Amino acid sequence: MSPVITSHANATVRRLKSLRLKKHRRAEGLFLAEGLRILLEALDAGRTPEILLHAAGQEAHPLVDRLVAATRDAGGQVLATTPAVLAGVTGKDNPQMVVGAYAERTPGLAALRLSTGRILAAERLRDPGNLGTLLRACDGAGAGGLVLLDASTDPFSVEAVRASMGAIFTVPVVQASGDTFLAWVRACGVHLVGAALVEGACDYRLARYPAPSCILLGNEQQGLPRPLIAACDTLVVIPMLGRADSLNVAMAGTLLAYEALRQQRPPS
Amino acid sequence: MSPVITSHANATVRRLKSLRLKKHRRAEGLFLAEGLRILLEALDAGRTPEILLHAAGQEAHPLVDRLVAATRDAGGQVLATTPAVLAGVTGKDNPQMVVGAYAERTPGLAALRLSTGRILAAERLRDPGNLGTLLRACDGAGAGGLVLLDASTDPFSVEAVRASMGAIFTVPVVQASGDTFLAWVRACGVHLVGAALVEGACDYRLARYPAPSCILLGNEQQGLPRPLIAACDTLVVIPMLGRADSLNVAMAGTLLAYEALRQQRPPS
Repeated sequence: MSPVITSHANATVRRLKSLRLKKHRRAEGLFLAEGLRILLEALDAGRTPEILLHAAGQEAHPLVDRLVAATRDAGGQVLATTPAVLAGVTGKDNPQMVVGAYAERTPGLAALRLSTGRILAAERLRDPGNLGTLLRACDGAGAGGLVLLDASTDPFSVEAVRASMGAIFTVPVVQASGDTFLAWVRACGVHLVGAALVEGACDYRLARYPAPSCILLGNEQQGLPRPLIAACDTLVVIPMLGRADSLNVAMAGTLLAYEALRQQRPPS
Repeated sequence: MSPVITSHANATVRRLKSLRLKKHRRAEGLFLAEGLRILLEALDAGRTPEILLHAAGQEAHPLVDRLVAATRDAGGQVLATTPAVLAGVTGKDNPQMVVGAYAERTPGLAALRLSTGRILAAERLRDPGNLGTLLRACDGAGAGGLVLLDASTDPFSVEAVRASMGAIFTVPVVQASGDTFLAWVRACGVHLVGAALVEGACDYRLARYPAPSCILLGNEQQGLPRPLIAACDTLVVIPMLGRADSLNVAMAGTLLAYEALRQQRPPS
């Protein structure tokens, strides 16, 4: 049993805390995930942390023990610490029992699972909560991945990982330029369905989503740029019956992903 | 032209800032909304702030001028201030050009617009972002209101108002106990559709949503309690194809509100 770390100045604690900043994540190739539920989700998906920090001094918890054992088996580092130190690492008042630092995986377009019939893509996504929620929508609707086009928010930020509720470990996230993405779409015969408030766009419930389809979502403020709109096979809008002209991008992505699912795998 | 307020210690500035806390909102009967887009949304819905704080010293902005004039016409107080003071009031680094303090309206169940065919209800909702997003879903899907059952998060918090993107001004929000709500549901012949991960719940795409229907959503962690589940006419689940067992409550509410819309007003 290793000693319990009680100091915020401990080198590993400081290293973990630094991963809240993107430049340190990139430099280390590591990102933070927190909470028993998400870390167990990762474990079930075959992922163990490089470093696991867990709260000591409480009664034994079989699920924490399972994480500790799996991390050690995979050659990871395990550290016991205090709730105060855990709170310092995550920046939350109510710290989780466990925090893990995981290797960032940044696969290419080939990692997208087109055989599922549907994937999502988002252009210059700004909000990490929206990114995490879109990953959760991919997981729920059985979509084979999320493409982040151009300069989107970092999928490995603490906020995005938190909002994904573990989907960061199970849904492929691919970063690509618009041009590279469009070339791949054409080469693979992907049907591109863009969400755009433009003339000629059709009600999303009347559009077709042949497999494989990619649902393309625009930036929160500006929507999709013209070259991407021009490349779409179909443009869709979501009916808005109230005063607002559009839903939040994560809500729109959820509706469209489930619409594609409905067509590709109708309820029986 | 009144003088520009430059001090964070100004009494009105301190009063506005205090509205970030629930106890002060309740004591004053006022809440904060920020940003030109949302304040104009409010104006279009016939609402003007009791107090309007706007950034001075910039070139004239016709939309800010419109807000200033409408606020004065309605007997509200208008104050010009600095971006630094605006940032202090909203707690954001990147302050909006305008912040308004509006009268809280807490209508009863009779304010719900059942003639729309559908409303939403959420039980012990905890997250203000989810609450705001559900209001936005009501606006988009043309639902006639949101009922907050038992001890839900405050719909007038800065975070909830922000996430609602103005829907706080256009969608009736009603707070009620579970018992009062169920009595009202029965008296008005409302069809109650609960989202619940329980045996016998059916695929939400196969359920019926006769008008008027109320879609009932449970707490983020615990779902719906048994008495509410027992009171539902229909229980539905959203198919989850991945590893997670449920979507975020705001995503689920969006999908279900649009499903009710699809049945009640099919696309043509």
